[in-house]
Amino acid sequence: MNCLSGLEKKIRSVRTAKGISQDKLAVKSQIDRSYIGRIDRGEVNITMDKLYILAAALECKPQDLLPEMD
Amino acid sequence: MNCLSGLEKKIRSVRTAKGISQDKLAVKSQIDRSYIGRIDRGEVNITMDKLYILAAALECKPQDLLPEMD
Repeated sequence: MNCLSGLEKKIRSVRTAKGISQDKLAVKSQIDRSYIGRIDRGEVNITMDKLYILAAALECKPQDLLPEMD
Repeated sequence: MNCLSGLEKKIRSVRTAKGISQDKLAVKSQIDRSYIGRIDRGEVNITMDKLYILAAALECKPQDLLPEMD
Protein backbone atom coordinates (compact mmCIF):
# COMPACT_ATOMS: atom_id res chain seq x y z
CA MET A 1 0.00 0.00 0.00
CA ASN A 2 3.00 2.26 -0.35
CA CYS A 3 1.80 4.64 -3.04
CA LEU A 4 3.67 7.67 -1.81
CA SER A 5 7.09 6.45 -2.87
CA GLY A 6 5.78 6.19 -6.42
CA LEU A 7 3.65 9.30 -6.53
CA GLU A 8 6.46 11.79 -6.09
CA LYS A 9 8.46 9.97 -8.76
CA LYS A 10 5.59 10.25 -11.22
CA ILE A 11 5.04 13.92 -10.44
CA ARG A 12 8.74 14.65 -10.77
CA SER A 13 8.96 12.64 -13.97
CA VAL A 14 6.11 14.56 -15.62
CA ARG A 15 7.39 17.88 -14.28
CA THR A 16 10.96 17.42 -15.54
CA ALA A 17 9.81 15.96 -18.88
CA LYS A 18 7.94 19.22 -19.45
CA GLY A 19 10.90 21.31 -18.32
CA ILE A 20 8.99 22.76 -15.40
CA SER A 21 11.03 23.68 -12.33
CA GLN A 22 9.72 23.31 -8.79
CA ASP A 23 9.53 27.10 -8.64
CA LYS A 24 7.49 27.31 -11.81
CA LEU A 25 5.18 24.53 -10.63
CA ALA A 26 4.66 26.43 -7.38
CA VAL A 27 3.65 29.54 -9.31
CA LYS A 28 1.43 27.66 -11.77
CA SER A 29 -0.32 25.63 -9.10
CA GLN A 30 -0.39 28.41 -6.50
CA ILE A 31 0.91 25.84 -4.03
CA ASP A 32 3.53 27.07 -1.59
CA ARG A 33 7.09 26.51 -2.85
CA SER A 34 8.18 24.67 0.28
CA TYR A 35 5.15 22.40 0.04
CA ILE A 36 6.05 21.60 -3.60
CA GLY A 37 9.48 20.60 -2.31
CA ARG A 38 7.93 18.33 0.29
CA ILE A 39 5.71 16.73 -2.37
CA ASP A 40 8.78 16.25 -4.58
CA ARG A 41 10.54 14.45 -1.73
CA GLY A 42 7.53 12.26 -1.03
CA GLU A 43 7.15 13.68 2.44
CA VAL A 44 3.47 14.49 2.24
CA ASN A 45 0.33 12.49 1.69
CA ILE A 46 -1.43 14.88 -0.66
CA THR A 47 -5.18 15.29 -0.88
CA MET A 48 -7.23 14.69 -3.98
CA ASP A 49 -7.77 18.38 -4.62
CA LYS A 50 -4.00 18.89 -4.66
CA LEU A 51 -3.66 16.01 -7.13
CA TYR A 52 -6.09 17.74 -9.51
CA ILE A 53 -4.43 21.12 -9.03
CA LEU A 54 -0.99 19.63 -9.77
CA ALA A 55 -2.33 17.80 -12.83
CA ALA A 56 -3.84 21.01 -14.16
CA ALA A 57 -0.57 22.89 -13.56
CA LEU A 58 1.38 20.09 -15.26
CA GLU A 59 -1.16 19.93 -18.08
CA CYS A 60 -1.78 16.24 -17.68
CA LYS A 61 -4.52 14.00 -16.34
CA PRO A 62 -4.57 13.25 -12.61
CA GLN A 63 -4.59 9.58 -13.63
CA ASP A 64 -1.17 10.11 -15.24
CA LEU A 65 0.31 11.06 -11.87
CA LEU A 66 -0.77 7.90 -10.06
CA PRO A 67 1.80 5.14 -9.75
CA GLU A 68 0.66 1.64 -10.61
CA MET A 69 -0.02 -0.64 -7.68
CA ASP A 70 2.22 -3.63 -7.24
CA MET B 1 -11.19 22.11 -10.19
CA ASN B 2 -14.16 20.54 -8.44
CA CYS B 3 -13.06 16.92 -8.36
CA LEU B 4 -14.75 16.03 -5.12
CA SER B 5 -18.25 16.09 -6.51
CA GLY B 6 -17.17 13.47 -9.01
CA LEU B 7 -14.95 11.36 -6.79
CA GLU B 8 -17.66 10.22 -4.42
CA LYS B 9 -19.88 9.35 -7.38
CA LYS B 10 -17.16 7.18 -8.88
CA ILE B 11 -16.45 5.45 -5.57
CA ARG B 12 -20.15 4.84 -5.00
CA SER B 13 -20.62 3.64 -8.55
CA VAL B 14 -17.82 1.06 -8.27
CA ARG B 15 -18.93 0.07 -4.77
CA THR B 16 -22.57 -0.52 -5.70
CA ALA B 17 -21.68 -2.23 -8.99
CA LYS B 18 -19.77 -4.78 -6.93
CA GLY B 19 -22.60 -5.13 -4.43
CA ILE B 20 -20.47 -3.83 -1.58
CA SER B 21 -22.29 -1.98 1.18
CA GLN B 22 -20.77 0.97 3.03
CA ASP B 23 -20.48 -1.31 6.07
CA LYS B 24 -18.61 -3.97 4.11
CA LEU B 25 -16.32 -1.36 2.55
CA ALA B 26 -15.54 -0.05 6.03
CA VAL B 27 -14.58 -3.54 7.18
CA LYS B 28 -12.57 -4.33 4.04
CA SER B 29 -10.70 -1.04 4.04
CA GLN B 30 -10.40 -0.75 7.82
CA ILE B 31 -11.62 2.80 7.45
CA ASP B 32 -14.05 4.02 10.09
CA ARG B 33 -17.69 3.51 9.06
CA SER B 34 -18.63 7.12 9.68
CA TYR B 35 -15.69 8.26 7.57
CA ILE B 36 -16.84 5.97 4.74
CA GLY B 37 -20.22 7.70 4.98
CA ARG B 38 -18.56 11.09 4.73
CA ILE B 39 -16.55 9.98 1.70
CA ASP B 40 -19.77 8.67 0.12
CA ARG B 41 -21.40 12.06 0.62
CA GLY B 42 -18.41 13.88 -0.83
CA GLU B 43 -17.77 15.69 2.43
CA VAL B 44 -14.09 14.90 2.71
CA ASN B 45 -11.04 15.62 0.62
CA ILE B 46 -9.37 12.24 0.90
CA THR B 47 -5.63 11.71 0.83
CA MET B 48 -3.76 9.60 -1.67
CA ASP B 49 -3.20 6.77 0.77
CA LYS B 50 -6.95 6.54 1.36
CA LEU B 51 -7.52 6.43 -2.41
CA TYR B 52 -5.19 3.42 -2.70
CA ILE B 53 -6.73 1.72 0.34
CA LEU B 54 -10.24 2.19 -1.09
CA ALA B 55 -9.14 0.93 -4.50
CA ALA B 56 -7.63 -2.18 -2.93
CA ALA B 57 -10.80 -2.79 -0.91
CA LEU B 58 -12.94 -2.30 -4.03
CA GLU B 59 -10.57 -4.46 -6.06
CA CYS B 60 -10.03 -1.85 -8.73
CA LYS B 61 -7.27 0.53 -9.79
CA PRO B 62 -7.02 3.89 -8.05
CA GLN B 63 -7.18 5.40 -11.52
CA ASP B 64 -10.67 3.92 -11.91
CA LEU B 65 -11.91 5.98 -8.98
CA LEU B 66 -10.82 9.33 -10.36
CA PRO B 67 -13.43 11.38 -12.16
CA GLU B 68 -12.45 12.87 -15.50
CA MET B 69 -11.63 16.55 -15.48
CA ASP B 70 -13.92 18.86 -17.44
